[in-house]
Amino acid sequence: MPKTQIIAEPGVPQIVTIREFDAPRDLVFRAHVDPELLVKWLGPRRLTMTVDRYDVRNGGIWRYIHRDVDGSEFGFHGVFHGTPSPDGIVQTFEFEGFPGHVSLDSLSFEDIGGRTHLRSVSVFQSVEDRDGMLESGMETGVSEGYERLDELVAEQAPVS
Amino acid sequence: MPKTQIIAEPGVPQIVTIREFDAPRDLVFRAHVDPELLVKWLGPRRLTMTVDRYDVRNGGIWRYIHRDVDGSEFGFHGVFHGTPSPDGIVQTFEFEGFPGHVSLDSLSFEDIGGRTHLRSVSVFQSVEDRDGMLESGMETGVSEGYERLDELVAEQAPVS
Repeated sequence: MPKTQIIAEPGVPQIVTIREFDAPRDLVFRAHVDPELLVKWLGPRRLTMTVDRYDVRNGGIWRYIHRDVDGSEFGFHGVFHGTPSPDGIVQTFEFEGFPGHVSLDSLSFEDIGGRTHLRSVSVFQSVEDRDGMLESGMETGVSEGYERLDELVAEQAPVS
Repeated sequence: MPKTQIIAEPGVPQIVTIREFDAPRDLVFRAHVDPELLVKWLGPRRLTMTVDRYDVRNGGIWRYIHRDVDGSEFGFHGVFHGTPSPDGIVQTFEFEGFPGHVSLDSLSFEDIGGRTHLRSVSVFQSVEDRDGMLESGMETGVSEGYERLDELVAEQAPVS
């Protein structure tokens, strides 16, 4: 089984992503909301990431830009519903290259004996939008990002 | 066929609502974003509505309160993705009595020879959340609200 499970059922405008990390829940959560940590792992390795805004509170807006080696820029933004915490993050997500197409993402971080089970559910405005996301190379980007997150949490963990 | 079609397929975390109005597209759109008009139709007749915020722009927050005759209050809020226009509204929706449970709503207003075809797609974080919304009496509230909107647009229409 691949480390990152990405589940997309036919006819349902939803993607469920499941991944476990060998790190405590608080650290995995922090890596999702602290811009200094985020830029070190979110997305594929070939892109560099800059955080424009990351207002981690109920109603707060987040925005970041991914830059390719040729200088192409890809902006993304959304808003938090409820205050993000290790109990969960609810946020919207919009790729600025495809405006008007939005997903709603719900992340949960479960402690499994010192490790963390991350479950992410994204719902889309239509099955077509969901399929467009899958065809954009999202699976590779997510899997590679989570590998980078494995490395990051290993660096952050206290030496025992 | 009922005037308001509410479609909820088994296993899909989505509700599609379809309704036609005997009024121009711009007026039906305006009734969705102008607080002075909104309070006259949104929701069942027994509730009175107060708009707290309605910041109709990309990233803007909306919030309103419904009050029952016994004084009970029900708050709702969300955020707009993209600037609302007659071409469409994309917004999140959260009932404050059930925090952390959010839907993403996409509304489109199509001109059909001077009348308006309204299509609303709501996607939920889970099928359970979707079913909870249906069981809350949403169908009655939506149908009754749209009847009130019929009356409102009839009042607003120019006398010909």
